[in-house]
Amino acid sequence: MAVYTEVPDEALAAFVARYDIGDVVSCKGIAEGVENSNYLLRTERGNFILTLYEKRVAEADLPFFLGLMQHLAERGIACPTPIHDRSGAMLGRLCARPAAIVSFLDGMWPRRPTPLHCQLLGEALACMHRAGADFAIRRENNLSCAGWRRLIDASGKRADEVQPGLADELERQHAAIVAAWPKSLPAGVIHADLFRDNVFFLHDRISGIIDFYFACNDFYAYDIAICLNAWCFEPDGSFNVTKARLMLAAYRAARPLSREEIAALPLLARGSALRFALTRLYDWLNHPPGAFVTPKDPREYLRRMRFHAGVAGPSAYGIDP
Amino acid sequence: MAVYTEVPDEALAAFVARYDIGDVVSCKGIAEGVENSNYLLRTERGNFILTLYEKRVAEADLPFFLGLMQHLAERGIACPTPIHDRSGAMLGRLCARPAAIVSFLDGMWPRRPTPLHCQLLGEALACMHRAGADFAIRRENNLSCAGWRRLIDASGKRADEVQPGLADELERQHAAIVAAWPKSLPAGVIHADLFRDNVFFLHDRISGIIDFYFACNDFYAYDIAICLNAWCFEPDGSFNVTKARLMLAAYRAARPLSREEIAALPLLARGSALRFALTRLYDWLNHPPGAFVTPKDPREYLRRMRFHAGVAGPSAYGIDP
Repeated sequence: MAVYTEVPDEALAAFVARYDIGDVVSCKGIAEGVENSNYLLRTERGNFILTLYEKRVAEADLPFFLGLMQHLAERGIACPTPIHDRSGAMLGRLCARPAAIVSFLDGMWPRRPTPLHCQLLGEALACMHRAGADFAIRRENNLSCAGWRRLIDASGKRADEVQPGLADELERQHAAIVAAWPKSLPAGVIHADLFRDNVFFLHDRISGIIDFYFACNDFYAYDIAICLNAWCFEPDGSFNVTKARLMLAAYRAARPLSREEIAALPLLARGSALRFALTRLYDWLNHPPGAFVTPKDPREYLRRMRFHAGVAGPSAYGIDP
Repeated sequence: MAVYTEVPDEALAAFVARYDIGDVVSCKGIAEGVENSNYLLRTERGNFILTLYEKRVAEADLPFFLGLMQHLAERGIACPTPIHDRSGAMLGRLCARPAAIVSFLDGMWPRRPTPLHCQLLGEALACMHRAGADFAIRRENNLSCAGWRRLIDASGKRADEVQPGLADELERQHAAIVAAWPKSLPAGVIHADLFRDNVFFLHDRISGIIDFYFACNDFYAYDIAICLNAWCFEPDGSFNVTKARLMLAAYRAARPLSREEIAALPLLARGSALRFALTRLYDWLNHPPGAFVTPKDPREYLRRMRFHAGVAGPSAYGIDP
């Protein structure tokens, strides 16, 4: 939960006056998201989301993120549409922070994803990949394969505080994954953080994909691998192959997968699990005692990494080459 | 900021289905308030506030709070109106907690109150007192004069951790205030917690008074005294007599004040400052290190208590008997 910045009324009114959306009638901080300050903004013209970008998002990346949302929204993807101010700008400043207003999306993220949710997600993910293919700006994925060395070093031997022997295990897994990492696969803009709380559903359809602040250029199949991890494991840690099968089949129906992409899925899923285990491990070891964000347990993703290391092949996910 | 309870979609849908407000289209936790979990609920029929009552609110008091809001709303006071379910109930259960849905109110609370805000508040406070006069249920004020002994004892000598000598000062102030506390003044239902964040303004009028979860029966003038403390001091600690004068004049125009009420204001304001200093002191000394609610500094209200102890009479607030 995150509202880091309190916005004075006068500053808010002046900021909103730059847009053609009428006067503010209500503005309430939303207790979701951990990177930025988000407000549900109501004006005479309807509901919007006001976001103040706090320091965890690099300001230089904002034209990519906002431009991507606009690009995808124009192509029919249900995602927030940045609102332009009267000068045409999508990005302004409020309370000394970069700030933007985007459209409000109805729907709710599923606390307990069903097979249908996973199927709908697979299709939406493929459509998003296709819609983003001609987006002009590029952004490297600094949390993909090449970035993990730095993440491992950031926790170092302190990993053993979470579980004895973990530092060594991370080194071994990392070495194996990096050695086998694909050199080339179909690539383009991926979301890279498509967890449950970033996908809204309404009346058995996807009504919104949000939070593009990790989006980047990388293998499309890596985005699928992230979703396998985020959506297809049950609370007891077991892998639900029915959910994976439906997700992958729906994806393929909208964007065909090559033999190489399918063959790479176990490794990509293992690498994606390592990536989230590493960032969670770092947050776990380094969260300030008074922080109001409870860090997530890194062991959840360590177990998923081990699962993917042990599968015989992509058929474990219910997909045939 | 407070969302303590995460509500599963299915449970939410089942709860809302008991009401005649259409299907849920969105539900977001609000990062305001510290006592309860509040959600901005959007249904096919509009916006509402869903509140789950956490353990700091006594369940036995909820019929008083919800009944009062309904009573006041029926009499034209801009406050949340509890929505009745199809069986006529205002109170249900969700996630094993008492829960209610109330109307959504536009407007924003003022980060920096102006003299106009204080004037509007004075009038609204008097109207609320008049509208509540015939409310049938009673609730004692367990945080008024008779309750302060318990609050002082709860912090005890640890008060000196905040400021050396504070424990002794609190004892002296308490003894003086209790000895002089009025035996009888016009009384009825008061809000008892009318801080800035509980009053919404829109287009230079009051659009909502919220958070009735400290409301109780007590002297009307004690509610005025709480507002003098909460609205008429500047960030530098100085007392703004212009704001006080406008607030009190607007109050009197809507509900006449007796000579005794006016004469009691300095003592009531001093006692009200003691009351908030004591609860803040307790929270300050006892907040868990991982809590995401930053406790308020009790010294702010100690300074206000000393100010009121030093005034020559009610004329210090810009009011004549």
